[in-house]
Amino acid sequence: MSFKGESDLSTLPLALTMGEPAGIGGEIALKAWRHFSQKTDRRSDQTPPVFFSIDSPHRLEELSNRLDIGTPVHPIETPEQAASVFADALPVIPLGFPVTTNPGRPNPENIPAVIASIDNAIRLVQEKRASGIVTNPIHKKCLSGAGFAYLGHTEYLAERAGGSAQAVMMLAAPELRVVPVTVHVSLSDAIRLLTTEMIVRSAQITVASLSLDFGIQNPRLVVAALNPHAGEGGKMGCEETEIIAPAVEEIRQGGINVTGPFAADSLFHPSARSDYDVALCMYHDQALIPLKTVDFENGVNITLGLPFIRTSPDHGTAMDIAGRGGASELSLLAALKTARDMARHRNTGLQSVA
Amino acid sequence: MSFKGESDLSTLPLALTMGEPAGIGGEIALKAWRHFSQKTDRRSDQTPPVFFSIDSPHRLEELSNRLDIGTPVHPIETPEQAASVFADALPVIPLGFPVTTNPGRPNPENIPAVIASIDNAIRLVQEKRASGIVTNPIHKKCLSGAGFAYLGHTEYLAERAGGSAQAVMMLAAPELRVVPVTVHVSLSDAIRLLTTEMIVRSAQITVASLSLDFGIQNPRLVVAALNPHAGEGGKMGCEETEIIAPAVEEIRQGGINVTGPFAADSLFHPSARSDYDVALCMYHDQALIPLKTVDFENGVNITLGLPFIRTSPDHGTAMDIAGRGGASELSLLAALKTARDMARHRNTGLQSVA
Repeated sequence: MSFKGESDLSTLPLALTMGEPAGIGGEIALKAWRHFSQKTDRRSDQTPPVFFSIDSPHRLEELSNRLDIGTPVHPIETPEQAASVFADALPVIPLGFPVTTNPGRPNPENIPAVIASIDNAIRLVQEKRASGIVTNPIHKKCLSGAGFAYLGHTEYLAERAGGSAQAVMMLAAPELRVVPVTVHVSLSDAIRLLTTEMIVRSAQITVASLSLDFGIQNPRLVVAALNPHAGEGGKMGCEETEIIAPAVEEIRQGGINVTGPFAADSLFHPSARSDYDVALCMYHDQALIPLKTVDFENGVNITLGLPFIRTSPDHGTAMDIAGRGGASELSLLAALKTARDMARHRNTGLQSVA
Repeated sequence: MSFKGESDLSTLPLALTMGEPAGIGGEIALKAWRHFSQKTDRRSDQTPPVFFSIDSPHRLEELSNRLDIGTPVHPIETPEQAASVFADALPVIPLGFPVTTNPGRPNPENIPAVIASIDNAIRLVQEKRASGIVTNPIHKKCLSGAGFAYLGHTEYLAERAGGSAQAVMMLAAPELRVVPVTVHVSLSDAIRLLTTEMIVRSAQITVASLSLDFGIQNPRLVVAALNPHAGEGGKMGCEETEIIAPAVEEIRQGGINVTGPFAADSLFHPSARSDYDVALCMYHDQALIPLKTVDFENGVNITLGLPFIRTSPDHGTAMDIAGRGGASELSLLAALKTARDMARHRNTGLQSVA
């Protein structure tokens, strides 16, 4: 396998999608540019990640003025123009659709623009003109009402990436990385759907990405149990012995540094966290409760297993606070930095196998 | 209702049970006495809680010497002797059974002694000669193998207290209180067993205890959802609309300050925690994951709804580290202090209604 001839990913800008325009996506995009332009990151010896929005420049300019964010907006035609513009303004590739911003009230007329923003981002990473995709939150209910038949970004991106990709969601904060094996299903469906194969594949994809995208060689994986006290030897559930322990054994036989299944309640305090690089969790809240308890604002949602890099802030459209200027850009900053760091690692990794 | 003539609970000692002698119970009891004897709590302007063990004095003395804990042990005959002995030694009411301590290896011959210690504690609180029971961890598997047909302490104490008591488990740390509505059952059983009535009764018992035992008037209760994103309007589970929201409504109509159901992953970060006094959770790990993530060592298990006070450290027998001297007494210290504080509040509360 050779990746010779690939672009140097880390020199390319990141593509930031619009997300639901009635939510906080535009506001946090503008604030993220302002943050990086003020170079508050100099102390950490890091240059800011260069990104461009795929959005309506008019809408963003109006939002910047109305919320007094002070971020200048500059339309660009190609991603290649982003780097030179970024020093002075937020570069925006126009969508070619009119977009109405009505904070808190999603307008179905904007749906083609919401989807076009994602599609453009996919095209640009596939053409190697963007290093990765950072997605602003979409409003699933609004989209599904309009016939968008995907649970969310992750499923849509997986299909657009070729269909065969098994996308795995990882949530990462500075202190903790978690991967929920089952995701956006009811808790009873999560239990019903859980299989040994699913756990094993999630582990394999996770470990491959931690190595390629995060520079962690031989990552340490822990696997959480499903039931309280890890089932206490079958007294409180049999999934540990029938499904999870066999998965752990199979993962181990694949050469991965793995332990578990462990009672989930004792896995996430600081001392336990120091023993692993990522925790594989059996259901959404088992992963998200500890992550958001440990760090509510700096969590990043990362899609592993796609042929391109994709991150997003770990929050929703927050339509209840949209349009007021109070939204926190912290999670988006973390998503942008994480995508940038992944591009650097992936680039290095690819060169080393070239 | 009048409680005139009741003893002043706060002047009575606490009864600490032996727990599984192959675990860390003896070690942490000795260390707890040492901690309080060193009066490290003086800075917090609190006198130490006076307690006595119901255990084998011989076994504890041997353990104190072997692990170099330095805690003198003094047999007493009645709880009334505890206060005067406590200044110089750990007071111990002998069990009248020989007890072998074989760290890490539970001996079924000790089971009558394990149960006798609990039974004696119950008798002493019922006779108003102890202010509350603090239980050291038992080894459920060992006990159930010997025909002890209870899931654990809580169920046993509820039955011994009269059978009609609905015991509710609360876990408390300085930063967070949680009540799991379903407890020691598999996750699929927890979902299957969950009812509106169960949630409402748990809320009522919890609120009554927070008022009586913790001095919190009109406590603020939040209720967690079961499914990810609180079911997202029925797209990921119907328990929120069918079971939990009706419970919240019924609780509210009962005059309790309650909100929810809320997505569980956003309930436990510091800013969210400041909005409530207790979180009602739908299953064991939903309560225990955030509690142990926030504070692994100082959590206390409190049984609400019993006619007497009962707390315990929030850990198991820890037989893997028993007999080595490395066990932490922090959770037992918290359990003893919490029981003492509850006795003070309950006393005050009873006097105010007398």
